[in-house]
Amino acid sequence: MAPLTSIFASRWVSKPTGVRELAEVELPSGFRAAGVAAGLKPDGLDIGVLFSEVYGTVSAARFTTNARVGAPVIVSRESALDGLRAVVANSGGSNTGDGQRGIDTARATQERAAELLGIKPAQVGLASTGVIGTELPREPLLAGVHAAVAALGSDTDDFSCAILTSDRGPKRACVEIAGGVRIAGQAKGAGMISPRYATTLCFIETDAELTRATLDRLTGHAVERSFNRISVDGQLSTSDTVFVLANGASGVRPDENEFGLALDTLMLGLALQIVSDGEGTTRVARIVVRGEHAELVARAVANSPLVKTALHGGDPNFGRVLQAAGAVYPPGDGFPAELEIEGRRVVAGGEALVGDLRELDGLLEGDEIEFRLSLPGDGEAEVFFADLSPEYVHFNAEYTS
Amino acid sequence: MAPLTSIFASRWVSKPTGVRELAEVELPSGFRAAGVAAGLKPDGLDIGVLFSEVYGTVSAARFTTNARVGAPVIVSRESALDGLRAVVANSGGSNTGDGQRGIDTARATQERAAELLGIKPAQVGLASTGVIGTELPREPLLAGVHAAVAALGSDTDDFSCAILTSDRGPKRACVEIAGGVRIAGQAKGAGMISPRYATTLCFIETDAELTRATLDRLTGHAVERSFNRISVDGQLSTSDTVFVLANGASGVRPDENEFGLALDTLMLGLALQIVSDGEGTTRVARIVVRGEHAELVARAVANSPLVKTALHGGDPNFGRVLQAAGAVYPPGDGFPAELEIEGRRVVAGGEALVGDLRELDGLLEGDEIEFRLSLPGDGEAEVFFADLSPEYVHFNAEYTS
Repeated sequence: MAPLTSIFASRWVSKPTGVRELAEVELPSGFRAAGVAAGLKPDGLDIGVLFSEVYGTVSAARFTTNARVGAPVIVSRESALDGLRAVVANSGGSNTGDGQRGIDTARATQERAAELLGIKPAQVGLASTGVIGTELPREPLLAGVHAAVAALGSDTDDFSCAILTSDRGPKRACVEIAGGVRIAGQAKGAGMISPRYATTLCFIETDAELTRATLDRLTGHAVERSFNRISVDGQLSTSDTVFVLANGASGVRPDENEFGLALDTLMLGLALQIVSDGEGTTRVARIVVRGEHAELVARAVANSPLVKTALHGGDPNFGRVLQAAGAVYPPGDGFPAELEIEGRRVVAGGEALVGDLRELDGLLEGDEIEFRLSLPGDGEAEVFFADLSPEYVHFNAEYTS
Repeated sequence: MAPLTSIFASRWVSKPTGVRELAEVELPSGFRAAGVAAGLKPDGLDIGVLFSEVYGTVSAARFTTNARVGAPVIVSRESALDGLRAVVANSGGSNTGDGQRGIDTARATQERAAELLGIKPAQVGLASTGVIGTELPREPLLAGVHAAVAALGSDTDDFSCAILTSDRGPKRACVEIAGGVRIAGQAKGAGMISPRYATTLCFIETDAELTRATLDRLTGHAVERSFNRISVDGQLSTSDTVFVLANGASGVRPDENEFGLALDTLMLGLALQIVSDGEGTTRVARIVVRGEHAELVARAVANSPLVKTALHGGDPNFGRVLQAAGAVYPPGDGFPAELEIEGRRVVAGGEALVGDLRELDGLLEGDEIEFRLSLPGDGEAEVFFADLSPEYVHFNAEYTS
């Protein structure tokens, strides 16, 4: 499938009332961004800087829960996470597993950006992505920060490209809600995608007037409903980072529900852009599980290589969904599942309703497939996941990342 | 890689003192076996029968812990699991998810075999493998049981072939220990392989004199050290079954340690034959983890598609091992891991010792690769796992199983 170019291109993202889509590289008032090529990657842009000109900008952040995190995550966590005014992000190296040298490089980056922007080092959030376990060269990085600050401009075109690794294209969007408040976001990620209480790299800017506490709460909700619900390959990264900056430059304090819904929508749209552009992705599915253990079961189905290869082949092999679900369900009480694929009921009371799989030919041929699994008890969880294709394997067997 | 044809072909299986390898299709005294073609598969043998002629034969069994199990597992569990004298196994359909009709077919199979062999239905263990969620046709199955009983002979050649699905070849072995006691085993499996407290299909026969309790205990130990330690694709099957039959026909009550060690070796050898013949397998690895959470970490590494694709590509990308391990390790306390690949230390104190991955070129080029990961605390676990190749994806995208 072609990567989703709009956050509303997926059937699973609907446009809330009052939300207007702007050009995808637009920025809210008071923000500037840039991306430059510093030679960290063999070619292309690799360092991005994002800056809020407004004193008193508030922010929120979420990070990976991987025990082995990169230096940028370590250093960012010690920073003023509710008062960030800038972000420095680079591709071409995740600065993970390089010991004290990596930490020193991250701190030097923070200091250099702060000095150039006239803010405190603790107001600079850091994010790096690329190979784990190698050195991120400090001098080209600092020179790149200098060049990016000098190039700061009024759109996110170069910034959103500078953070990409194996992505086929940028993920970015800008929406406007009532009162003229804008929210923009840029994300990256194609492999090692199964964020948990965090996300792959995602940067959100808004000119709404919000308190730190509100922004943090809304960020947590939105992340939980978007990035925490996607999986390309079930692999939690060492570098997942979300930074959300709100600078109040619109002079508007938006209705919290309306703003929250727009933020949810934006993050879900970006998250689905990531899945649709996952390494080798040719088809995306949503598994919705109702019942006890819904979260566990939904993740098991979404990460099953057998379900994912059947999805790739367009094979309505529902037995594999039952197998993957049953593997994590407590044994002993039977497994009275009900399963629908694209609205067609194929299993009831745990037993097949279809005698011959050929009856289901064509059911999995679209770009977006929906599975709904019901089990006894309360609970609900959904996960959006990519198929598993030979291209994923080729790519990851040949590419050191 | 070529599938392992001998249980001692792997570097990880050593021959215990006093153990002698016999021709792989040999049977212990008092056992007979057969395999026939009953049309359950488009071609080839698909029904196998195994029989102990000895009254008082004892047995042990282990099954999958998947909540959604097949009818043969349901019916076998209700049978005389410590006194089985026969096994009927078929490929071409797993008889899973077919409701009461599937249960009735399994019971009819048990009854027909018992009648033909002059034993009780509860003394017949059942095992089926193949597609989930379709009907296993009863009449061809019963006719096949009749033909197989009529064909019972003195080796396992046809039996071991009749249980195969996507396997490239049979997995079977026979060993003799001191006193002339023999132990033979046949196994199958190539995909949906991540047994838990159970295994894919495996049948073991011995003419040793053993009590029910001893046989059960030794079976549990051996399964735990062999089939429970392998993974092709991290997918727990709905049909995993081990039956071990001991008929005492040798007249020898073996030394328990010696017998247990031989049984462990036989099962580990068969388990490694399964991994080496996994769907699309080109390379097998062992991950040994020492420290707290060893089991969790070893499974996460073994089932990581990023580690498995790097293994496929011969890419010494140790950052992916750290990522997969860190993803399941409790965050917050740092991650002071030490990692060796093929005896070379590449990570210490959680940080890379290698500046350039090209220094490690060639390290992953063999058929069998060893990773050793040390973490703080007590504990140890090992998992043998297959790589992830484009062939696995092609096969499972195109094949309904």
